Amino acid sequence: MSTTTRVPQEERTRAMRHRLLEATVECLVERGFSGTTTTVVSERAGVSRGAQLHHFPTKNALVVAAVSHLTELRGGELGRAVAELPDGEGRTRAVVRMLGDHFSSPVFAAALELWVAARTDPALLEAVGPLEQRVGRETHRMTVEALGADESRPGVRELVQATLDLVRGLGLANTISDDTRRRGRILDSWADVLDEKLQENR
Amino acid sequence: MSTTTRVPQEERTRAMRHRLLEATVECLVERGFSGTTTTVVSERAGVSRGAQLHHFPTKNALVVAAVSHLTELRGGELGRAVAELPDGEGRTRAVVRMLGDHFSSPVFAAALELWVAARTDPALLEAVGPLEQRVGRETHRMTVEALGADESRPGVRELVQATLDLVRGLGLANTISDDTRRRGRILDSWADVLDEKLQENR
Repeated sequence: MSTTTRVPQEERTRAMRHRLLEATVECLVERGFSGTTTTVVSERAGVSRGAQLHHFPTKNALVVAAVSHLTELRGGELGRAVAELPDGEGRTRAVVRMLGDHFSSPVFAAALELWVAARTDPALLEAVGPLEQRVGRETHRMTVEALGADESRPGVRELVQATLDLVRGLGLANTISDDTRRRGRILDSWADVLDEKLQENR
Repeated sequence: MSTTTRVPQEERTRAMRHRLLEATVECLVERGFSGTTTTVVSERAGVSRGAQLHHFPTKNALVVAAVSHLTELRGGELGRAVAELPDGEGRTRAVVRMLGDHFSSPVFAAALELWVAARTDPALLEAVGPLEQRVGRETHRMTVEALGADESRPGVRELVQATLDLVRGLGLANTISDDTRRRGRILDSWADVLDEKLQENR
């Protein structure tokens, strides 16, 4: 009997953690970092304060876990979407536009809230710093692969990095107004330059 | 007598407003938006609460005025610095690096705090939106001029915009760790691409 009762308990715990993390991200997106309180999150997730504190003893623990969780989820989505892109003409545009959408999503807004809060909060920065480094490396690796870029050639690594810094800047621009059309034009134009440069280096 | 007494009074008022705005920006940089309170600012500026409220009745009025003031100041500085750059080889690298430094300054951090706070605060957004549009247009105009770019040629406008979105993304990357060396390499590489593309279009 012990195994049949243990499994549902584990599942319930996992489902509860999941609800807490989802509620935290929604809260960050809608109310910002300062409007995200453990009370609001537990109410939203339908989880008791005691259970929440057991899993995430502080607000910082909760927000870092939430953004980490969602970023990995989105990273996975991005990876699968990239895998489905057709090869050949138009691929670079598709990759770059996909990155642009990725950095303009609500999850980017949640991560931005965390990032900006960490700038003036040393304890939060200690958790956010390594998370950002890991996410950055993973996104870079995925972009190199999607573009079929050869980073051993001079200048290629910098062009891939510039592409990611560009979409980060576009993501920031998109937070206070809908920048979709302008972003599309800029990214198409950049994709054409990138295509030419990567082919030169092939 | 009335003119000789009025002028010092006007000067005192101007100096006081200046101290309030400077203190606000310092506060945004050091403590973030949520840590910036009118009490902390008035103490820091050495201005009475009454006088502060007379000039800036709300926290939002104060932070918007402060970031607007400093952004214009920095825009002026950037304009003068660009005017002193030598023509010829290396100019594009110098322009792009200057933009990179501009978007990695403490004033960018203060503006970022305001920007992110405005995302979830409709009243603040109403003030920040037009300010950002004006600043964006002015920075774009200045960049076109500094690069000697001809925006009537196809693709040139998008490359100038991409350059500004890139430095914004680099500015964001710089807020939680010192990104100076990586930024330098990326911007040199970007400048070389830009130079080639702008020349093609000349």
